Amino acid sequence: MHEKFTVGLIRVLTTDDPDLLNAHGRFIESRFPSLHVENLCIPDHPQGIHSPELARQAVPRILETARRFHAPDMLIVSCSDDPGLDELRAEFPHIPVTGGGEATAAVALRYGSRIGLLGITDYAPKAYLRLVPDRIVAVGRPEGVHTTRDLMTPQGRASTIAMALKLKEQGADVIALACTGMNTIGIAGELEDVIGLPVVDPVLAEGLFAYYEAVRR
Amino acid sequence: MHEKFTVGLIRVLTTDDPDLLNAHGRFIESRFPSLHVENLCIPDHPQGIHSPELARQAVPRILETARRFHAPDMLIVSCSDDPGLDELRAEFPHIPVTGGGEATAAVALRYGSRIGLLGITDYAPKAYLRLVPDRIVAVGRPEGVHTTRDLMTPQGRASTIAMALKLKEQGADVIALACTGMNTIGIAGELEDVIGLPVVDPVLAEGLFAYYEAVRR
Repeated sequence: MHEKFTVGLIRVLTTDDPDLLNAHGRFIESRFPSLHVENLCIPDHPQGIHSPELARQAVPRILETARRFHAPDMLIVSCSDDPGLDELRAEFPHIPVTGGGEATAAVALRYGSRIGLLGITDYAPKAYLRLVPDRIVAVGRPEGVHTTRDLMTPQGRASTIAMALKLKEQGADVIALACTGMNTIGIAGELEDVIGLPVVDPVLAEGLFAYYEAVRR
Repeated sequence: MHEKFTVGLIRVLTTDDPDLLNAHGRFIESRFPSLHVENLCIPDHPQGIHSPELARQAVPRILETARRFHAPDMLIVSCSDDPGLDELRAEFPHIPVTGGGEATAAVALRYGSRIGLLGITDYAPKAYLRLVPDRIVAVGRPEGVHTTRDLMTPQGRASTIAMALKLKEQGADVIALACTGMNTIGIAGELEDVIGLPVVDPVLAEGLFAYYEAVRR
């Protein structure tokens, strides 16, 4: 039993490494100490989600994983593609559900009106197309990065910084990190220092809306 | 000296009543105990802001008022019309600035895509036109309510509830409270219970983005 508002956080990257599994939850608890986060990952996605096909395949696994939490106050799918949100809302109508895509898109709108998406795909995740379609000025995938694991290398980090600069050149006034793996490598602050624009971290945005749910009533 | 992240909150309703002056700041501190809020009101606006002309007149007074805070970490103009945000950002480029309009519009986008605006004007405040122009399905002013003070009567409250129901009938899937006086009368929770839609309180949204600023780096 937890007295704290408890978030069930679903990782879409399959891992046995507890540090990696719990990375997003630990980050949220560090910024929002009044929240408690339980972390689970879906099976059979060792490379995470980086295509519409992988997102589609993940949905039933996300639902199964969500059922394993014990009475959470909220569910977060910690992925910028927001896979399974509609299905989770249908199955758990009485608890709030969000994901790294819609949370980040909403926060980004407070900071700018020309959003540059920095992720691991060449397309904008669906939340951005639903929420802010006419605010996206550019979508950038760092060179050599195709999956969330590619971000975890020195080359992946360098090429992420280079792509952020390019998005700024293309007219972005805010950068939305469109892969939650960008949080895992903790790059948002460094990007802000280098490019001089606000950079929205998707896991921070997820935590922000969890906090909002915890205090809104 | 405060160790806490300190928000300078500007009320655009002129009042000598400390309870009314501090209402929004107290609310933010109750939901975000890690924040400290200092409250000041602008002079010469006893009826608040409920027209473009009043908003225009308020801008120099908002700037004067902002200068009276002692080294705040952030400034909030606690008004859904966001008067003076551009001017404050120009004068205080190194601290974050937000207002009740843009903060609420951003939060509302996380909860729905057909936003009903419930405020005290017959037009949408400018933040909504800038951030979510194609997401506004209806703008409603409660019958008999023309200024923020009109909300503070039993009739004002009843007519606010009636207008929220009407916005739902008009197709809204989320209600954005487009006057911070709606927070002063504490009506968001009651509206959610009555109409069964998420209702975004502008002062809670202001606090959320202040918290975000406090923890983002």
